[in-house]
Order: sequence, then C-alpha cells, then structure tokens
Amino acid sequence: MKINCETKGITVGVVGLGLMGTSFIATLLLAGHKVIAIAPLPEDMIVAPERIYNHLVQCEKSGLLNNRITDYLSHLSITEDYLLLAPCQLVVECVIEKSEIKKVVYEKIEKTVTKSTVIATNTSAIPISELQKYLLVPDRFLGIHWAEPSYFTRFLEITCGTNTGDFYSNWIYNLSYGWNKEPTLLRKDIRGFVTNRLMYAVYREGLSLVKQGHATLEDIDKSFRYDVGSWITLMGIFRRMDFLGLENFAVIFEALFPSLSNDHEVPELMQRMVDINAKGIKNLSGLYNYSFEESMKWEEAFAAFNEEIFKLAASYPAVENIETSIKK
Amino acid sequence: MKINCETKGITVGVVGLGLMGTSFIATLLLAGHKVIAIAPLPEDMIVAPERIYNHLVQCEKSGLLNNRITDYLSHLSITEDYLLLAPCQLVVECVIEKSEIKKVVYEKIEKTVTKSTVIATNTSAIPISELQKYLLVPDRFLGIHWAEPSYFTRFLEITCGTNTGDFYSNWIYNLSYGWNKEPTLLRKDIRGFVTNRLMYAVYREGLSLVKQGHATLEDIDKSFRYDVGSWITLMGIFRRMDFLGLENFAVIFEALFPSLSNDHEVPELMQRMVDINAKGIKNLSGLYNYSFEESMKWEEAFAAFNEEIFKLAASYPAVENIETSIKK
Repeated sequence: MKINCETKGITVGVVGLGLMGTSFIATLLLAGHKVIAIAPLPEDMIVAPERIYNHLVQCEKSGLLNNRITDYLSHLSITEDYLLLAPCQLVVECVIEKSEIKKVVYEKIEKTVTKSTVIATNTSAIPISELQKYLLVPDRFLGIHWAEPSYFTRFLEITCGTNTGDFYSNWIYNLSYGWNKEPTLLRKDIRGFVTNRLMYAVYREGLSLVKQGHATLEDIDKSFRYDVGSWITLMGIFRRMDFLGLENFAVIFEALFPSLSNDHEVPELMQRMVDINAKGIKNLSGLYNYSFEESMKWEEAFAAFNEEIFKLAASYPAVENIETSIKK
Repeated sequence: MKINCETKGITVGVVGLGLMGTSFIATLLLAGHKVIAIAPLPEDMIVAPERIYNHLVQCEKSGLLNNRITDYLSHLSITEDYLLLAPCQLVVECVIEKSEIKKVVYEKIEKTVTKSTVIATNTSAIPISELQKYLLVPDRFLGIHWAEPSYFTRFLEITCGTNTGDFYSNWIYNLSYGWNKEPTLLRKDIRGFVTNRLMYAVYREGLSLVKQGHATLEDIDKSFRYDVGSWITLMGIFRRMDFLGLENFAVIFEALFPSLSNDHEVPELMQRMVDINAKGIKNLSGLYNYSFEESMKWEEAFAAFNEEIFKLAASYPAVENIETSIKK
C-alpha cells in the first residue's frame, strides 16, 4: 500500500452528499485531504454529517483509522455555499444521474474554482464526453468511478472524455494511490467503461447459455463463484492467463470465439423481468425469489464479505509490490 | 457444508496419477470413499504415493482432516492392474489430453466394470460427445472437471455428452456435494464448457479494449481484481444483478450489446505470444515479464491465497443455506 503524502496539501470538494458522496468523503478524509462538502439539497445539511460519521465508525471498527474520528472531521466543512470550493484542486460531483442537473452543478463549480482545478463526475451512466461539453474549460474534466463502500474497495476507474488532458488524468491516477485505490485509467471514453463492458460480455454469454438450455442460472452462478472466485482477487484475468500457461490460448480462442454469443437484442429473460417489475433483492422479486429475511441476510452478508475480502486482498503485498513490465 | 454419507459405501477408481489425478484422490479419500488408483505408467507407482501423501499433509495443515493421514491411506490401493477396478461404481479418467490414449483407457476400463458403472473424464480440451463415441455403453459416460488443488476448491463442472443418461449425471451431481463441491451441471455438451465460455467472453472483450487503446492489460487486471473480486466469491453473476437492482439492466444491455466485441479471429497480441514462444509464468515470458523470483512468488501467493479464499467462502454458510427458487 503506497500512501501518497501529497494528499495532505490538497483540498478536495465533493458536491452531492448521498451514500456515494459521503462514503467517498470518508475515503478522502482518511487519505489526509481537507474536504469541502457541498449540500445541493437543504436536507443534506442535516443527514450528511451523520452519514459521514457512520462511515468513519465503520472505518474505525476495521482498523483503518490512525487518529480519532474527531481529528478527521476537523478537516471537513459541510456547506450549501459553492463559493467555499474556491481553494479546491479537485471537485468531485456525485449528484443524481440527470444531465441537466449535472450541467447546473458544473456551472456553479466553474464560477468559483481556478481553470486548472480538476472537475470530476462519478457517473456510471452518462458518457464523460457528453458531460464534458457542458464545461467552459473542458480539458480538466474526467470521470472518477468507485465501488461502494469506497473505503473498503480498491477499485477506481478514471475515465477520460474526448477532450481530457493527459496531465489531469495522470495526476488523478497517481493521487488515487493515496486514497488506497488501485486505479484503472480508461484513456478513451467508451460506452460502459472497462469493468462494465467486461461484465456485460459475461452476462451476454451467460444468458445465451441459459436460453439454449445448456445450464441453469444457479449453476452458472456457482461456476463463477467457485472457479473465478478462487483466483480473481489475486491476479486479474491476463495475469491468470500467464499463470495457466499462454501456449494453448490462441488455439482455444480460434476454436471458441466463433461460437460465443454475439447477441444484440435484450435477452427475453431480462425483458420479462422488466415487464413483471422485478427489481431484484430490493422488491424481493428477481432472477431468484427472496423472502424479506433472505433479502436482509444478503445485505448483511455482502457488507461483511466486502470487508473481509478487502483485508484478504491487502494481505498480499508481496504480489502487489512485484514490479512487472508489460511487453505490449 | 453438506457431507453426503452415501460416499462411504462407494468405491471410486481413478486412472492417471498426475497432479490432477492425485489431488482428486485426496478429495475422494477425505469424502470417505474407497479408492482404486490405476497407474498407467510404471513410474507412477513410485511417484504417486508421495504425491497423494503430500496432498493429505496440505489438507491436514488446513484442518480438513477428521482422522489421521494413515487412516485415509488405508482406503487407497495403487496398482497397474485395471482388473482391480471391478468393484467401482465410478471410474474417473485423468490421463493426458490425447483422444487415442483416452480411447485405450476406456476400453480397458469397460472390460472390467459393470454396465452401470459411471465412467468420467476430467478433460478440459476434448468435447465429451466425441470421447463418448469410444464407449461400448456410452450413456454412463460424462465429464467431471475440477479446479486445482481439488480439495481447496468448490468448483466442479459435470458435463453431459449427447448420449449421457440423466440418471447418471444427476447421481454424480448429488454425490459431488459429498466431495465438498458446489457442482455445475452442463446439460448439453458445448464447446468450452460453462466457465471457460464465460471467461473467453471476457478475454475477447478485454483484448479488444487493449487493441483499441482504451485501457492497458494492467489496468484491466486491476479493474477485475478489485471490482469483480469484491463480490464474485459471495454471489456469482446473476445474484449480483438481483443485488444491484434489475430494473436498469435491460436498458443498458440494449445500449451496450451492439458495441461489444464479436471478434472471431485470434487477437494479434495472443498470436504474437505464440510466435515468440511466450508461455507465461513457467518460462518467465508472457503478457507480463517475470524474473525467476517473481514467478516463484506468484506460485506461492496463489497456493496461499487459494487456501484463504476457500476458507472465506466456507465462512458464509448463512448465505449458502438460503433456499431460493428460480423463476425461470
């Protein structure tokens, strides 16, 4: 784990204090940043302090804190006043996924900050290049997308829009190691970003196998859990290929690629879920069915598992620190 | 963890005593089976006992044994004589991936066992339906494919050939819970089996992103490690969709599927690896480069990680035991 001391001198603004915004604020405070939190809604002024406090309590329970919670909170200001963003070198927008609202937020931010202040969005739905068009100074705009809860996950995707300057994306890439992240840099904006695209490739093939009667949903879940789950957190997909031995892959690719699903249409099963208003765990109706107790168990299990896998991943620094060069 | 007591009365044969065969033998002994191990090569008679003993020592170190190692070994016979397979209800072939050699092995097995003895192959390369043609009684033939080391992984793929009888595949499916497995049943033989197909869909998309310059190999590895790694071992891919909320997936699929890679050709990068004889970690040359020390560290890290993730997965029985019904 490299902790980038550079973080201490840098003030970061966060606009939008929902679950994602407040969990990211906790991450920033842990990293030593001064944080200016902007409440776009008046009720956020009441709810956000408690949310942030609770996140820090979670961090404390897991041994992530070096100081008292109050010490971290002393570096945080929560306000409705965008003018307080003036000293920020980075402002992260975490408001809802509506372009027209984000546009207004960017206007307010740009009125206050300097021209070299990086402005980032945590959108996972809207292309960065589209949002970038709303900016007066577009080259300092990019996407920063993390997994929840932010302080227990290493995943961070930095996405450049068409006009993002390398200087800014590289700065955020390096800075994010100080947030205890393992960043991924998406150099060209692309629909769905990296992880989503890879996962949608899996969903496409998996749903096709189910449709054709080769395997059940449940069996596919087991297969991914127990096979991929046994190595993915250690090595990722390409390192895994090196580990298994590269020599056979080209032959297998040649044989297998033409038979993989190339479906363009929404799979019937997914359309049916929409038609019957199946939202998954939250309304107890999904690809699987749930009782209320089961849905609670899944929520609890995920929170606990997430913390454990975070610790497990962190306990393999020997592998992390191996310096490897990529051949191209 | 359900332990199927049925295992105790069942004698299992294993033909082929390489690393996969011997690690599977350890799994079978742990499950309470009597095991007849056939050494197809004379040198196996010398090497195999030590291999199996070492596997059991690993199991003992991890607290998987209820009895002494010698107690388990008392249920094992190692021999070159195929006639000793006569009492087996199941014989698993683990010899090298050459059809003509496997054919001879099946002939020898069928000469000895009853007509209802299940004969299985652990191939991961040859279609089950093709090998099935070599059998005199083909309906009792199927594929049983596991991950290494067998006693530390829950993954098990059972693959039916065109002519496999449901009775036999269901029997193995149920029996395998007694081996501490979470089986996947592939009802129709398909090139690449379930997990491989899903992973090759990922490789296809990932290599396409690299080729187009959207992201580096290293960044894609990080993204999969730290995002997918944070939930896959808990929930699999479809449960994850339920957990995230199903309502948006159809819309995203519609937008994204047409833009995913449908490549049929072997990616250039992979062809180049073949051309330069890059075999990955084992010859220190792969998608990444390795020093000898680094390659050793990866081997060690994988062995240790594998054991830890096995334990972590096993510590979520509350989730395992949730009975959920699939809607179709």
